[in-house]
Amino acid sequence: MMNNLIRTLMVQTPTVPGNLGRVATAIGNVGGDIGEVETVKVGHNYTMRSITVQVESEDQLEELLEAVRSLEGIILHTVSDEVLHAHEGGKIQMKSKMKIESIADLRRVYTPGVANVCRAIQEQPDKAKIYTSIGNTVAIVTDGTAILGLGNIGPVAGMPVMEGKAALFDQLANVNAIPILLNVNEPEEIIQTVKNISPGFGGILLEDIGSPHCFEIEERLKEELDIPVMHDDQHGTAVVTLAAAISACRSTGVNLKEAKVGQIGLGAAGIATCRMFMAYGVKQVIGADKSPEANERLVSYGGKVADSLEELMENCDIVIATTGVPGLIQKEWIRKGQIILALSNPKPEIEPEDALEAGAIYATDGRSVNNVLGFPGIFRGVLNAGVRDITHTMLVAAAEAIANSTRPGDLVPHPLNLAVHEAVSEAVERAAVVHGEKDGVYR
Amino acid sequence: MMNNLIRTLMVQTPTVPGNLGRVATAIGNVGGDIGEVETVKVGHNYTMRSITVQVESEDQLEELLEAVRSLEGIILHTVSDEVLHAHEGGKIQMKSKMKIESIADLRRVYTPGVANVCRAIQEQPDKAKIYTSIGNTVAIVTDGTAILGLGNIGPVAGMPVMEGKAALFDQLANVNAIPILLNVNEPEEIIQTVKNISPGFGGILLEDIGSPHCFEIEERLKEELDIPVMHDDQHGTAVVTLAAAISACRSTGVNLKEAKVGQIGLGAAGIATCRMFMAYGVKQVIGADKSPEANERLVSYGGKVADSLEELMENCDIVIATTGVPGLIQKEWIRKGQIILALSNPKPEIEPEDALEAGAIYATDGRSVNNVLGFPGIFRGVLNAGVRDITHTMLVAAAEAIANSTRPGDLVPHPLNLAVHEAVSEAVERAAVVHGEKDGVYR
Repeated sequence: MMNNLIRTLMVQTPTVPGNLGRVATAIGNVGGDIGEVETVKVGHNYTMRSITVQVESEDQLEELLEAVRSLEGIILHTVSDEVLHAHEGGKIQMKSKMKIESIADLRRVYTPGVANVCRAIQEQPDKAKIYTSIGNTVAIVTDGTAILGLGNIGPVAGMPVMEGKAALFDQLANVNAIPILLNVNEPEEIIQTVKNISPGFGGILLEDIGSPHCFEIEERLKEELDIPVMHDDQHGTAVVTLAAAISACRSTGVNLKEAKVGQIGLGAAGIATCRMFMAYGVKQVIGADKSPEANERLVSYGGKVADSLEELMENCDIVIATTGVPGLIQKEWIRKGQIILALSNPKPEIEPEDALEAGAIYATDGRSVNNVLGFPGIFRGVLNAGVRDITHTMLVAAAEAIANSTRPGDLVPHPLNLAVHEAVSEAVERAAVVHGEKDGVYR
Repeated sequence: MMNNLIRTLMVQTPTVPGNLGRVATAIGNVGGDIGEVETVKVGHNYTMRSITVQVESEDQLEELLEAVRSLEGIILHTVSDEVLHAHEGGKIQMKSKMKIESIADLRRVYTPGVANVCRAIQEQPDKAKIYTSIGNTVAIVTDGTAILGLGNIGPVAGMPVMEGKAALFDQLANVNAIPILLNVNEPEEIIQTVKNISPGFGGILLEDIGSPHCFEIEERLKEELDIPVMHDDQHGTAVVTLAAAISACRSTGVNLKEAKVGQIGLGAAGIATCRMFMAYGVKQVIGADKSPEANERLVSYGGKVADSLEELMENCDIVIATTGVPGLIQKEWIRKGQIILALSNPKPEIEPEDALEAGAIYATDGRSVNNVLGFPGIFRGVLNAGVRDITHTMLVAAAEAIANSTRPGDLVPHPLNLAVHEAVSEAVERAAVVHGEKDGVYR
């Protein structure tokens, strides 16, 4: 069977009749089939169109692209496969909630009517919660230093991730999320910039900020701002990891709180996972990392460090690995009856089949352990509760809600199931309300 | 005829059955009619409802509010008239462009698919224009120091204005606009903060930033950023003022470029208006302000200063006033055949009828001279053109487009007419393309 290639070309032509014909002819001459043609923008001088073509081979595609590129006055901006095409034009948009249809509407929602609303807030600043979107808006802040597994590729190249998160915030939790791309990397500059723009937001999600500066940035912002702040790569990941561990223990009849838990890899996610398990009530949590600083950091949070990877593997009932090193865990290290969560993407520290063969009672990789199960409901919950901080009590409640939404035998629930996000939101809000006054997190 | 009062109460009740009944009974007991009841939020502990009531008098309203406030466990957050009600919950929301419905969708628009998009941008940063929303997104930045005519009421109290502008940006020009509220006022801090967050935006609209620090902030940002920056209170206002003057001259057969134009009041708008008229080609522009610094500033931009208000009134064919001082212009100062645009809101420097009675051939106040005619199309145009600056050439083109969209005899066109905003956008884009290379404004 032939696998046809489908690509979408973003083509700029002069805004003069006949140019689309030249492009279409060039494509037809090399045997390319034209599918959808969408006019993206009609400018004064040029028109931008997205043209979907189908060809039979990479060679034919190259020939086609060459034919289009050689047309005078025509610019081929991008060639997108299905994934790239889904991102064209960006994934989010700021919309007006109401249609402004008359001068009366305009005078109500804009000048002069809006002055009354401004004055009402000036007199009682708390009314901003009712009369503006601030209380429902979260900034997604990145400096681009640790985008996915791609490393320090800069904030603009990281924007597709931030937009994806914002789209999920909207769809799963009805939260307005605004990507904020920072072109500074010094902790002090990042902290100051976020503080300077904080009045417009009800919460701050720090995202894909590298280790170790992510720790200082999050701690300082939590201390110095009176709105909830969370670094997703730390605590969002840790929440979903704890939920997965709870599910794995339920599947196997292991008592998590009494078990020995080992965390291999003490980057942002690993450290936060140790802290999350301790907050959940696990009495023995042991970490291991090749970096002495990372080990010291775990100790500073009250954790214990293993002497070696082998020692950790030998002693722990549950092993979690987030090192980014494929195949790090050797089969012969697996102890009979262990639970192994080798979560690095795209390749785990040990393949689940290998771990099971070596005697593990439960083994999984990281493909389904997705942060998207955490952040939307966590922020919906704290925004609903109106608290000024996110505590481990709330995050553990989120993890338990995710685990309780998981079907028996599964590791985590379906990430797009709205009921899961509602359950997380409710659990976080309940924890905020019950523990909020004790923890001093109310405004 | 009786004028009933309609108010919307934002009421928080414990999430326990029976509480809405208690509220409704309390309202009914004092003779209030209940209209729409909307559940805004169902929290774990409490429920928020917006309840519309109708009463016959202010006294009855007070009685009703007192009755609701006295209910134990129930909180009356706000009492909104029709204008305030239109702002409840805020006026804008960040939406996903696509529905993410399956794991396949999630893998395409979020991890792991999004990594390919990030890499494509990392390799060719220009592709961010295609694969993100950055090129269609404008930050609306304020420090809250000059909100409408209300003065320095702070950025949060100014948020309803920023949201109104963002809603209009969406509706009139399909631009994503993001309010950025700054809690710093020093020019250097504002400049640095805007620069630090600039990678996420295709343009910056400075808004309601006080004079004189607005001048330094705009000039520095225009110089130091490679995206278009515009202070709306200066140039947005000046564009619409020039458009109004062009229309007034057409109505009266006056040759604007050969006329003497006097600008009374050299705040942010006044200075910018002088510069805009000079850029349009008016040979004689004279300004007047009680502040020596303001007069010096006009001179620094190449303008001339009148010795006195009376001298300006005596010499000028067209007089524009933006002082905020109602009744400043005395009837006896009006010269026969003058055009008077007394634009201060809500009360002009001279009532149009008085000016006409005193001999003016054309007189108007500022009620219809609304910035909304300018900023949406101006930014649509520069974003379409992909230029890195907004020049006076483009702004004059915007003013001419507004004037050309005005029906004979009118001062300005209808502000919600989409065709006007398209005309402005096209004119700005054309000016950008034609003059862009000469002015060095292309990236």
